[in-house]
Amino acid sequence: MTIARLLRPASIAIVGASDKIGPGFNAWNALKAVGYGGTIHLINPRSKELLGQPCYPSLAEVPGTVDAVFIAVQAEKVVDVAKEAAAKGAGALAVLSSGFNEIGEHGAGLQRELVALAREHGMAACGPNCLGFLNFVDRTALFGTSLPGELPVGRTAAVVQSGSIGIALLNAARGLGLSHLITSGNEAVTTVADYVSFLVEEPTVDTLIVFLEQLREPQRFIAACRRARVLNKPVIVLKSGRSAKGQQAVAAHTGAVAGSLEASDAALRAAGAVQVFSLDELIETSLAFSTLPRTLKASGTAMVSLSGGQIALALDAADETGLTLPAVSTAKDTLTELLPPNSHIANPLDLTWAGLYDASIARRCVKALGEQPDVGVIMLLQDSPRGLGEQQANRYSTLLRAVADGAADAGVPAVAVSNVSSDVHPGYAQAAAEKSVTSLRGTMEGIGAVARYLRWHSAPPPQQARAVASGTRRADAARALASARAGAVLDEHDAKAVLAAYGLPALPERLAASVAEAQAAMQALGAPVVIKALVPGVAHKSEHGFVRLNLRNEAEVGQAARDLLDKGRALSGGDETRLLVQPMISSVAELLIGARVDPEFGPVIVAGMGGIHVELFKDVAVRLAPVSAAEAQEMLQSTKAGRLLDGWRGKPKGDLAATAEVIHRLSCLIADFKDDVSEIEINPLAVLPAGSGCLPLDCLIVRKTR
Amino acid sequence: MTIARLLRPASIAIVGASDKIGPGFNAWNALKAVGYGGTIHLINPRSKELLGQPCYPSLAEVPGTVDAVFIAVQAEKVVDVAKEAAAKGAGALAVLSSGFNEIGEHGAGLQRELVALAREHGMAACGPNCLGFLNFVDRTALFGTSLPGELPVGRTAAVVQSGSIGIALLNAARGLGLSHLITSGNEAVTTVADYVSFLVEEPTVDTLIVFLEQLREPQRFIAACRRARVLNKPVIVLKSGRSAKGQQAVAAHTGAVAGSLEASDAALRAAGAVQVFSLDELIETSLAFSTLPRTLKASGTAMVSLSGGQIALALDAADETGLTLPAVSTAKDTLTELLPPNSHIANPLDLTWAGLYDASIARRCVKALGEQPDVGVIMLLQDSPRGLGEQQANRYSTLLRAVADGAADAGVPAVAVSNVSSDVHPGYAQAAAEKSVTSLRGTMEGIGAVARYLRWHSAPPPQQARAVASGTRRADAARALASARAGAVLDEHDAKAVLAAYGLPALPERLAASVAEAQAAMQALGAPVVIKALVPGVAHKSEHGFVRLNLRNEAEVGQAARDLLDKGRALSGGDETRLLVQPMISSVAELLIGARVDPEFGPVIVAGMGGIHVELFKDVAVRLAPVSAAEAQEMLQSTKAGRLLDGWRGKPKGDLAATAEVIHRLSCLIADFKDDVSEIEINPLAVLPAGSGCLPLDCLIVRKTR
Repeated sequence: MTIARLLRPASIAIVGASDKIGPGFNAWNALKAVGYGGTIHLINPRSKELLGQPCYPSLAEVPGTVDAVFIAVQAEKVVDVAKEAAAKGAGALAVLSSGFNEIGEHGAGLQRELVALAREHGMAACGPNCLGFLNFVDRTALFGTSLPGELPVGRTAAVVQSGSIGIALLNAARGLGLSHLITSGNEAVTTVADYVSFLVEEPTVDTLIVFLEQLREPQRFIAACRRARVLNKPVIVLKSGRSAKGQQAVAAHTGAVAGSLEASDAALRAAGAVQVFSLDELIETSLAFSTLPRTLKASGTAMVSLSGGQIALALDAADETGLTLPAVSTAKDTLTELLPPNSHIANPLDLTWAGLYDASIARRCVKALGEQPDVGVIMLLQDSPRGLGEQQANRYSTLLRAVADGAADAGVPAVAVSNVSSDVHPGYAQAAAEKSVTSLRGTMEGIGAVARYLRWHSAPPPQQARAVASGTRRADAARALASARAGAVLDEHDAKAVLAAYGLPALPERLAASVAEAQAAMQALGAPVVIKALVPGVAHKSEHGFVRLNLRNEAEVGQAARDLLDKGRALSGGDETRLLVQPMISSVAELLIGARVDPEFGPVIVAGMGGIHVELFKDVAVRLAPVSAAEAQEMLQSTKAGRLLDGWRGKPKGDLAATAEVIHRLSCLIADFKDDVSEIEINPLAVLPAGSGCLPLDCLIVRKTR
Repeated sequence: MTIARLLRPASIAIVGASDKIGPGFNAWNALKAVGYGGTIHLINPRSKELLGQPCYPSLAEVPGTVDAVFIAVQAEKVVDVAKEAAAKGAGALAVLSSGFNEIGEHGAGLQRELVALAREHGMAACGPNCLGFLNFVDRTALFGTSLPGELPVGRTAAVVQSGSIGIALLNAARGLGLSHLITSGNEAVTTVADYVSFLVEEPTVDTLIVFLEQLREPQRFIAACRRARVLNKPVIVLKSGRSAKGQQAVAAHTGAVAGSLEASDAALRAAGAVQVFSLDELIETSLAFSTLPRTLKASGTAMVSLSGGQIALALDAADETGLTLPAVSTAKDTLTELLPPNSHIANPLDLTWAGLYDASIARRCVKALGEQPDVGVIMLLQDSPRGLGEQQANRYSTLLRAVADGAADAGVPAVAVSNVSSDVHPGYAQAAAEKSVTSLRGTMEGIGAVARYLRWHSAPPPQQARAVASGTRRADAARALASARAGAVLDEHDAKAVLAAYGLPALPERLAASVAEAQAAMQALGAPVVIKALVPGVAHKSEHGFVRLNLRNEAEVGQAARDLLDKGRALSGGDETRLLVQPMISSVAELLIGARVDPEFGPVIVAGMGGIHVELFKDVAVRLAPVSAAEAQEMLQSTKAGRLLDGWRGKPKGDLAATAEVIHRLSCLIADFKDDVSEIEINPLAVLPAGSGCLPLDCLIVRKTR
């Protein structure tokens, strides 16, 4: 299955060719519009000639070879046409027809037939239920809808699972230059992962855009995105279906804490993709990445404006999107000298009327800011709506030019952001074009786009964490798993033995089978102690009253042990109940650290505060496993747990490093044993003061049942 | 001080008149552009004639009267000009000059002089540090900057604290029709509250827009907004300064849980204002409110589209903005009949190619949806970007017309929303204009605007809660306050006496001064008990180890009581320590209920889960006090506490009604005693299972020190 024959066919047959507006005509028209240089064959049993060239009744009648076939016939006839294509030796199909998986079982049957046929003959296929694709670079297309008058050709490749999002990108008229536009439809045969893998290697492609509803083949997609990262090509992803409704459906389906949305976000993060959340954000972010330089001087932004009101709005957006605004440092004297007395010298900088009326002042202010070592981008925050009077439009255009010149003097790029998202004044737009200033729209969208650009270019590429597990550790863990008591759910003691094999810290604890042994354990450990009953088949001990805290002397231990053994016997009907005696631990914070194997995305690791904070507050970090200790630290810091461990309101700091190491090791364990274990949960992990480590107080392992 | 003389002056003097571009010329030009019918006097000592009319050296020389004076001279000269204006009998000033409060102490001195003068002579004043205003309705202006070629005249009044936001609104070319545009600047004399109070009563104004950086005179502003609500005129507010930086600064200043941002949000909510968070949202929301009908058939939306991709994006936005999408009910049979087999009949509805190619199908589908009793708005979700080819633009325009006709058939308004925020295709825009379809842009902005519109028109107007306090209760509470022990902070026992006067539930508890009394209290209350030491000057008992939980027998009570009395004596140096003996209470949830007097916004009430959930998770509801019990329920339901009380994960439901009643009563107490008390905190309030009430376990009152 060669995707190159799909995206760069030497010859194309249009099945259902026509000279009337519709997919068959549009396909021919698109080839003419992009300037296709290969052979076009028209297929229509009702015509001998069409559009000034011969027309054949079927693919079989076509003289010569056919690389790719455009199909827009009824769903029921698609497989027959695909068979003819295969017989003709075609390597690729674009199937625009709908009526497949998206309509239920009947269509799914047709889709399975199509897939089987394509697999058998090694054919790539775009669709079905799509609009096909445009390839501006190689001047080819299998595209079934009409084109704008002016084709937005450039170096950004777009792959979208929705045709209408493709039409929006194609027609947005926002200056986004496209190398390819591929609408992937149902992805019966060829998936987003295939397209991205191919496009990443194209030297004519600098930036990739992806619109996803469902991420298929996540591991291949991640690999392609990582390759893009290595090649310094950003992959910008908009994924829909984030709402509670969709999420609830996913959760009901998998029944897991880290539902598919979290796992999918984790996958995009692991891929080093740039995630956005609306079509406007997708467009503005793509513009920022595709027009700004691919190497940074620094990751900070200096912002200039004429308006305190706009600066206030921008500060809110900078805070929300994580744009860094370094303080004025080396530029201070210059700015003080240039601007009127009493000016507020800060970043963002109000250029005041002095900057508006004297372009050389604006230019020199911007140059001074751009020369600060921590400033990588100059941002002009200026509304310039289309309805603006000429006087003001000219003044703002002059300001824009001055800012662009000042930025150029300092050797940093300039971006103009308008708070109003509708079209800007044509004069202002022209000034931006002349001076190659990236012109973005919308406070959040524009500022967010620059923040993402700076973050992506200054972050280290994501790396697959290396496992801690030596062969010995793996063998030890496997042995501990094998020697655990029967049943899908390992009890706490057996589970801890598995964790210990991976070097996780362990609480000093003792097993006891009798009251006397429990009392002896207390003597050895020192009071106060906790006693838990490990009863076969009981995963959640607290819910059954099988945990007794803060037992301070022999009498209390004796009473608790007796009671728990009785209750265990009553529940299990036998003498399998074991008692676990542990010292009481007081900690800075108690966290939940989880690991599970997601059916779609593979092993994932979860960290945060436990209890209501996971599901009620959604304050939990999820990453694909394994993660390095550094990534684990970043995970914790992305949740409120990070704030808590950092010395919240005078409390002592927690041992972040030790906690991160536990997360790292657990993530390696789940990754190494993803075929044997479906879930591991440490709940709680007691985090001790900095330097004193952390301790799993309870844990659970669920084996995979095969 | 009559604002009418400012906004509707019969004669105007322009100080600093000029025939060269600048404020003096712009002011004259603006009067010509709006068609001012009154007398214009030009003042400039350097000219005898300007712009074809006589020019005077000073205000004193002007023949006849002067109602309002336009001033754009240097800050230092403003007070002198204002004095001349007062001498001339002028009633209003528009001071565009900057160099006042915004530049520090020197400017603040000038501003104080200006204020004193205006107060003395009863003059209204716009600014200083503003651009003045435009009044399209009465065809007058005191406006210092240039105007767009086409004036956007309509029935929406805008009051903005930032000139550049005013320019953006004036020039946005988004179809927003303005009656007034007032830039309020430093608001030295005349404030947003003044303008809104005036504009609300204007019969020519239907909708109000406000851009705020700082809300001055909140109580008058709230009153004006409530009046607007009664008149069915929405007030749409964008407030900047929401970021962590600004918030931290506010928190550092007031040192309070409910910082000014929360109190300001509470004030806007109490006012019944519509809050938005970006300039784009402000524009789209204003368009929705000003163009859609002012009465609703129903509060639900039926959404139609051609694209699954767009529907997925819209569902996410509907979830986030609270747009209600009722299920397809009465329309079901019609839709099933009209659309192709296998179509997914749902809301949002994909009209499919059938709806795209056959306008009558689209129209009849929309009519059926619009006739559902729960549908008040039809929304067409369709991108139609400017670059669209003619073929597609025509098709989408035809669809838009069909949707408009179907909505009209059903008697509900139609809204078109585009996911792309840049300008739409002119043909599509024209179709929307012809059919009076409200055309909005941006997924979140457009859908959010309709959600806000529907919510505002279906919500009951906000009402000032009536206090529970009878004269007797007030007198009892005053007596309890007066008889409390000395010191700013009332101890728990004294504080509870004040709460009891307002009918809050009370834990059975006993004071004890000795070990024997504590043991007797345990006998009376039943074990286990809690003992707390009330030590003068100790507000936070737990932090001093002054709370002992779960004491199960006489020995434990004795030991704890002895220990606490010793510790209390050691700390206070005397015998004032009282012991408070209480039963142990187990609850469904423990909440924090707080009340305080905000220096700007007056009494506020706060509710949520306590501890880290207030400050780390910001999960707390803040409202101006008093609130009714119904508002208190809504408050709780707006936080995660509401979810917890609603039976979270199989736990019993908590007594929401009793909790709301406590919040209501506490809010009345703080409102009634706002001059005597600065803070009241019930922490925790133990919420018992539904029907069993709730109990303050601990509380604190801080008296105002005068």
